Amino acid sequence: MNRRMTTKHTQSETGDPLLLTPGPLTTSASVKQAMVHDWGSRDAEFLRINRMVLDKIVELAGGQGTHVTVPVQGSGTFAVEAMITSFVPKSGKLLVLINGAYGQRALKIAQIAGRATASLETPEDTPPDLARLDNMLVDDTAISHVFAVHCETTSGILNPIAEVAEIVARHGRRLLVDSMSAFGAIEIDARKIRYDALAASSNKCLEGVPGLGFVICRNEALAECKGNATTLVLDLFDQAEAFARTGQYRFTPPIHVIVALGRAIEEHEAEGGVVGRGRRYRENAGVLIDGMRAMGFQTLLPDRLQAPIIVTFHMPTDPRFVFQTFYDALKDRGYVIYPGKLTVADSFRIGCIGRLYPQHMVSALLAVREVLDEMRVSNGGPALAAE
Amino acid sequence: MNRRMTTKHTQSETGDPLLLTPGPLTTSASVKQAMVHDWGSRDAEFLRINRMVLDKIVELAGGQGTHVTVPVQGSGTFAVEAMITSFVPKSGKLLVLINGAYGQRALKIAQIAGRATASLETPEDTPPDLARLDNMLVDDTAISHVFAVHCETTSGILNPIAEVAEIVARHGRRLLVDSMSAFGAIEIDARKIRYDALAASSNKCLEGVPGLGFVICRNEALAECKGNATTLVLDLFDQAEAFARTGQYRFTPPIHVIVALGRAIEEHEAEGGVVGRGRRYRENAGVLIDGMRAMGFQTLLPDRLQAPIIVTFHMPTDPRFVFQTFYDALKDRGYVIYPGKLTVADSFRIGCIGRLYPQHMVSALLAVREVLDEMRVSNGGPALAAE
Repeated sequence: MNRRMTTKHTQSETGDPLLLTPGPLTTSASVKQAMVHDWGSRDAEFLRINRMVLDKIVELAGGQGTHVTVPVQGSGTFAVEAMITSFVPKSGKLLVLINGAYGQRALKIAQIAGRATASLETPEDTPPDLARLDNMLVDDTAISHVFAVHCETTSGILNPIAEVAEIVARHGRRLLVDSMSAFGAIEIDARKIRYDALAASSNKCLEGVPGLGFVICRNEALAECKGNATTLVLDLFDQAEAFARTGQYRFTPPIHVIVALGRAIEEHEAEGGVVGRGRRYRENAGVLIDGMRAMGFQTLLPDRLQAPIIVTFHMPTDPRFVFQTFYDALKDRGYVIYPGKLTVADSFRIGCIGRLYPQHMVSALLAVREVLDEMRVSNGGPALAAE
Repeated sequence: MNRRMTTKHTQSETGDPLLLTPGPLTTSASVKQAMVHDWGSRDAEFLRINRMVLDKIVELAGGQGTHVTVPVQGSGTFAVEAMITSFVPKSGKLLVLINGAYGQRALKIAQIAGRATASLETPEDTPPDLARLDNMLVDDTAISHVFAVHCETTSGILNPIAEVAEIVARHGRRLLVDSMSAFGAIEIDARKIRYDALAASSNKCLEGVPGLGFVICRNEALAECKGNATTLVLDLFDQAEAFARTGQYRFTPPIHVIVALGRAIEEHEAEGGVVGRGRRYRENAGVLIDGMRAMGFQTLLPDRLQAPIIVTFHMPTDPRFVFQTFYDALKDRGYVIYPGKLTVADSFRIGCIGRLYPQHMVSALLAVREVLDEMRVSNGGPALAAE
């Protein structure tokens, strides 16, 4: 890496740039090292690790005895598509709550699968309109399922899942949750929040490597899903049945990814589970937001809507600020940030999740300051050091 | 591992049991070691490796300038489902040639996707009936596509893909090939064998880790596939378009799996590509078959139908032969074999692919002999050493 500055930056354990993104994330060296072996897919040790992974995920969800984890190979979107097409029957209708790209994507998935759909959209910096949700469920009795995103990574907003779940349950409808970027760091307890299914992935707050999604399914709801799926590979009912019958995957699993997730879940537990992991991410987000504001940056979201997962910042208005230059100079210093995905504002994003600690955020802030100085950007914050 | 015998067995490079299976396979230590890093999905180095992987696969297929590789996250079956549902339009009809479990699975995929289907089935030890194929294509003008398995892993049979392709092309129909367990070791040259699409995976003869399938698509055929797919995540047209437009995956890719495949493809090239890889596997298969026959085992297939990928052996008839005992005792010695999947005969399978060399096969044969002695199995072969 090109290190033009004298500042000493904190490194990842393997010397790779730190990924301040919504994923793929920086993972621990031990998680990656767990992959330096081969296992057969019927190997007893692999099957033990896999069973531990699936059971621990149910525990993290508070679903012991009532829920089951069904893994889905591929990225989180594979799990979301499996969830929608396995749970919403061909005669069902899905209402999708949208305030970002992941809600939009869920709507598209349901439409491609030929399911009837409705949507309730709010701007990317605005939570769903709960009164309107209530009305829609009264007015449209065809709606069988509601889809909601827990933390919408597009903006970093934390949506009010408990309130949504209460309304959906009150109207006797079923809830599907995309908790991709929140699960493992923000509590969502199946004993308090009723849902039929919740999708998440190996590579977000659990800090595994990418390649495995999973859906936490309420047993009673899953039992009704036979024959719903419009594919073989994404059929959650069929995979759950195969596990119950044989303890095995229907198709060659991504063994290395699963074993890495097993190690990552042990490290998650050692950190204090959802509480401990969430605490570190909140510290990361706090250090980041305070430091960026001190340099004149403005967050898209007010603090009360901000999840401690990824933070969206408005681009500085100074014309000397060129995002690509900013991005590249941070990358040169060992920090990878993320472009914006917003339609409402010109922005960029910095992630707080993965194997990152507050000292990494402090170090990233130092790099941001150096780069702003180098670019001679005036950002409305305190005077920047002259070169 | 429990090593009850004094025989010194050849080990894998990482000390793991050798996987004499159809996959997951034993991979090289360097392939696994390539995964001990983190990359962002927009990282220039990752995108370079990914581009190399996709381009090299096209080269291995002889498809430069005419074909493109579209990756599909997940096992090979994900790639097969993506191929069938992206290439066969909703108005099409798929004729599936079946002589094993993978043909059966393709038929099921097409049926679930709501495509019209026909099938031509032969026993597991018998190649497709080419005269009957010819007749079916004359008689049923609704058949738009034919699906054939290159090496059917169920038995290990090598199906006559060139002859099938010639018949399909003569009738102006389209061919889809499942070359999962053959691609990279058995030549299938797109300049000589006409197909619309061919599916394979990271974890067979290319010797990567599991988690990525891919479909080699004829450009002109892929261009006609817009809107065919019945899912978002398995839509090959959409992913190919995204690559052409942005060079990126639509969804978080299994980065570690892809980087491992990049390393595996470099090692494949260093071994002499398809020719060199195929030579080693043929040596492995030759040593295995000769040695097993010398101990009285019989292969399911005559040599002229046997692919050098995986070999099916009949179970010995001696009642002292208990497969689970045999399997476990070989596993204890560091060799993992595979149960049979045949309906026509009681059998087991031993694979010849992955990071295995002839000396590993010799060593595995020694272990088989030890275990037969230990079990006091009389197998019709030469007298076994007394304990």
